[in-house]
Amino acid sequence: MHRVYIALLHYPVYNKNLEVITTSITNLDLHDISRTARTYGARRFFIVHPLASQRRLIQEMMEYWREGFGASYNPDRKEAMDLVELAEGMDEVLLKVKEREGRDPLTVATDARTYPNTVGYRELKEKIKTLDRPFLILFGTGWGLTQDFIRSCDFILEPIQPNSDYNHLSVRSAVAIILDRLLGEMF
Amino acid sequence: MHRVYIALLHYPVYNKNLEVITTSITNLDLHDISRTARTYGARRFFIVHPLASQRRLIQEMMEYWREGFGASYNPDRKEAMDLVELAEGMDEVLLKVKEREGRDPLTVATDARTYPNTVGYRELKEKIKTLDRPFLILFGTGWGLTQDFIRSCDFILEPIQPNSDYNHLSVRSAVAIILDRLLGEMF
Repeated sequence: MHRVYIALLHYPVYNKNLEVITTSITNLDLHDISRTARTYGARRFFIVHPLASQRRLIQEMMEYWREGFGASYNPDRKEAMDLVELAEGMDEVLLKVKEREGRDPLTVATDARTYPNTVGYRELKEKIKTLDRPFLILFGTGWGLTQDFIRSCDFILEPIQPNSDYNHLSVRSAVAIILDRLLGEMF
Repeated sequence: MHRVYIALLHYPVYNKNLEVITTSITNLDLHDISRTARTYGARRFFIVHPLASQRRLIQEMMEYWREGFGASYNPDRKEAMDLVELAEGMDEVLLKVKEREGRDPLTVATDARTYPNTVGYRELKEKIKTLDRPFLILFGTGWGLTQDFIRSCDFILEPIQPNSDYNHLSVRSAVAIILDRLLGEMF
C-alpha cells in the first residue's frame, strides 16, 4: 500500500501578476479535495495556511462535519474530513509526516507551467510503488506555487495537459486528475 | 478531433434516501467544470435545470464573467464560460447537439454505482476516436442520475474506482477524472 500525503498551500503562491501572495481558504477545497483524498487512499490531506484566523475558520467548518449536525446528516463527508489536518507551513507538514512515518517524505511539486527535469506520471507512479518512502504531493492555490518553492522539492511533476492551449484547471480538478493518474485503479 | 459534449443534470437525480429530486445549482460547478471542459476540448458544457429561475441565476453569473467586470479581470474564466449553455431538459440538449452536428449524439451515463453492461474507459475512448459520431457524456448532481434515466442511455460508463471502499467524489472531481481518462494526452 502506498504512503502518499497531499498538501494544499495558500502560501507561497502567485497571484495573476506573478506577485507572491497568501490566498484565502475556499470552503469547497476542503470538501472536494478531502473526498478525492479518501477515494484514492491518501494518508492525510494537509491544509496549509500561515494565518491562525484562517486555520480557525477551516477548523470550525471541519467540526461541523465531524461532530456537528453534518456528521449525522452525511457520514461520508465526515469520513473524508477525518483525513484533513491543518498546518502553519511546510516545516510543520514535514514534521507531521515524519512523526507518522518515521522518516522524511519525498516532496513532489505540481504546476501547470513546464520546468526542466520534470518527472512523468508513469515514472512517479513507479517510484511510489517501488521506493519504500512516504511521498508528499504539493498543490498551490491562486496562480500556483512559486518557482523558488517548486525548485526546493525533490520532484516536479509534469503539467497535466502540456500540449493543451488552455491550462487553467481549478486546483480541485487538478488534485482529482493527478491522484487518479498516480494512484487510480485504471493505470 | 473528437466531438464530445458534456451535460450536468439537476434532474432527474436521487437524494441520499434515493428519492427522485431536483437539486439547486452550485456556483462552483459552473466554474470548475467549464474550465475542465475547455482544457479537454469539449464542444459544449450544458447545465440542465427544469426551473427557469435557476437557469436565470446561472445566466447572471455567466454574464458577469463573460461581459461584466469578470471578463476583463479574468479572461481565462471568460473563455471557459463561453462553452456553457443552459437547457431545460434532455430534449433540448439533444436538439442543440443535433443542430450543431447534423445528427444525434451517442449518450453516455456516468454513475458511482455498478451496472451490468457498463463500458470501460479504454473501450469508450476507442469509440470516441473511431466512430464518426458526437458523444454526450451525462453527469448527475445530488446522489446521482436515476436508474431509469441511466438505462435510457446508449452507454453506461463504469465507475471511476469500482474497488474503492469509498465512492463519494464530488461531481466536479468526477468530471475532471473522466474527461482526463477519455480525452487526456496521457492515455
